[in-house]
Amino acid sequence: MDSSAALVVGSLAFDDLDMPTGEFRDVLGGAATYSSIAASFLSPVHLVGVIGKDFGEEHLDMLRARGVDTQGVERQVNGKTFRWHGRYSKDLSSRESIDTQLNVFADFRPKIPASYKQSSVALLGNIHPKLQLEVLSQVERGPRTMVIADTMNFWISGEPKTLAEMLPKIDLFVINDEEARQLSGKANMSAVAREIRKMGPKRLIIKRGEHGAMLFDDDGCFYVPGYPLEEVLDPTGAGDTFAGGLAGYLAARSDRSTNAVRRGMFYASALASFCVEGIGPKRLLEVTKDDLKARLDAFTRMVDYGGALH
Amino acid sequence: MDSSAALVVGSLAFDDLDMPTGEFRDVLGGAATYSSIAASFLSPVHLVGVIGKDFGEEHLDMLRARGVDTQGVERQVNGKTFRWHGRYSKDLSSRESIDTQLNVFADFRPKIPASYKQSSVALLGNIHPKLQLEVLSQVERGPRTMVIADTMNFWISGEPKTLAEMLPKIDLFVINDEEARQLSGKANMSAVAREIRKMGPKRLIIKRGEHGAMLFDDDGCFYVPGYPLEEVLDPTGAGDTFAGGLAGYLAARSDRSTNAVRRGMFYASALASFCVEGIGPKRLLEVTKDDLKARLDAFTRMVDYGGALH
Repeated sequence: MDSSAALVVGSLAFDDLDMPTGEFRDVLGGAATYSSIAASFLSPVHLVGVIGKDFGEEHLDMLRARGVDTQGVERQVNGKTFRWHGRYSKDLSSRESIDTQLNVFADFRPKIPASYKQSSVALLGNIHPKLQLEVLSQVERGPRTMVIADTMNFWISGEPKTLAEMLPKIDLFVINDEEARQLSGKANMSAVAREIRKMGPKRLIIKRGEHGAMLFDDDGCFYVPGYPLEEVLDPTGAGDTFAGGLAGYLAARSDRSTNAVRRGMFYASALASFCVEGIGPKRLLEVTKDDLKARLDAFTRMVDYGGALH
Repeated sequence: MDSSAALVVGSLAFDDLDMPTGEFRDVLGGAATYSSIAASFLSPVHLVGVIGKDFGEEHLDMLRARGVDTQGVERQVNGKTFRWHGRYSKDLSSRESIDTQLNVFADFRPKIPASYKQSSVALLGNIHPKLQLEVLSQVERGPRTMVIADTMNFWISGEPKTLAEMLPKIDLFVINDEEARQLSGKANMSAVAREIRKMGPKRLIIKRGEHGAMLFDDDGCFYVPGYPLEEVLDPTGAGDTFAGGLAGYLAARSDRSTNAVRRGMFYASALASFCVEGIGPKRLLEVTKDDLKARLDAFTRMVDYGGALH
């Protein structure tokens, strides 16, 4: 019997962020952190990652208080937590890595605790595709198990064969538009999606930042908009928040139809829109269920045209 | 009694297009050309513009065959038609003007024929805001008259006062995101829209190219996606096609609610998606009513999530 929890595997980190609005140091970060927080709004979370001696217990307490099971978080007491230093452009449209210290993350070998193995959704964050395959070999897939995976430019160019082995095992592949163009070698989204779907994932979501996200599957194409914000402070983790929100939405439900994924994308996009309103996960951590419901209502009004077109 | 026609005022031109796929010369162009063709799918069109001796009668015949009234097209037999030479980047995301010859368009003073004055929609293409005001002074506005206007960076920086005088007289202001940012001095779309709506237009549509378009009015925000295409050949005229499609949709109807505008945006976006599939207006001119209906159906499926979210 599977559990209605989202398994989240990926990085836990500290980020140093040079933003147009200031410099922020030791900000809680990492893809799995953002994804876990997002998923925790909608389902229990099973978190797998690695931290060093410098990762304060207060961060794990915060996650546990949100319904995140942290027994899968391994602490390497002789090492330091993954650390990233990034600098954003003035309009936040691009960023450069000033420094990346993998630290304990360099030797990360995800071990899935027995109580996690039947999670109804498994979200494989942006880690080496070899490790994503290792996680998959440990997961016990049932009829409603859904495996969601992300990747990045580094693995697309550096590990094409392992990626090609991983993709056919994936139910839902979630990447951004730049990575999707790189992976497919195509420019226009319809051609991009067709080429990537040929590589094996059942469904594909292409994230497009402020422009929203597109789903491609056997039922066609679906578009969820980005939420028009007054102020964007920090895009860090928005894509991971999107993936985590989607994972949490689907983990709590047994419906695996395109409409279930489509509805989940509204939750994912709403949570991502909160994420960018604060530095690091700050704003996301303040969001209440009422805040989320209000933003979901605003999203549905954004696509409501009052019935039939013709 | 007003007529269910769309009045379209703007440029008729010949374009020389340097595209990644080849060089195309003497391509029928101009904002009013694209807008008229688009509107003609949905309503009669009243066209006002100026042409030179070199504008072949076959182009006017083509327009007339589509239900475009051309009595408002003035021919200056001693001059040449507006001509633009543009070069697009390899991915079509940007373009530069190689040469612009205003020719007869330099002295264009739009004269609205008596039979055009009660058109239910007036689309003021991207011309000097002083001329847009002159057109407005000639139009007889009734209860369902809707004035739609476009502008461009050139007038935003060069004619801010005239633009400020024009905007409060506009029911629906349609510009692209770059121009909207320039005009508002803001970066994020919510702030951009708030600032521009303060300038007076009742409603605002921000066109975002392949990412679709957003409507901002008293009923909130609405998003129509761009259509994911296999191949984009030429973005020239897509924005004018969008505006023309919207004008034609609204001209044929008396509903002036936000839902009418929202539904019109699907027609506008569908027509714009055809426009970019061919060089110049070629593809748009081949589109049948069945093609349009099929693409509209595809658009509505793209935003259908099967009912309530919660």
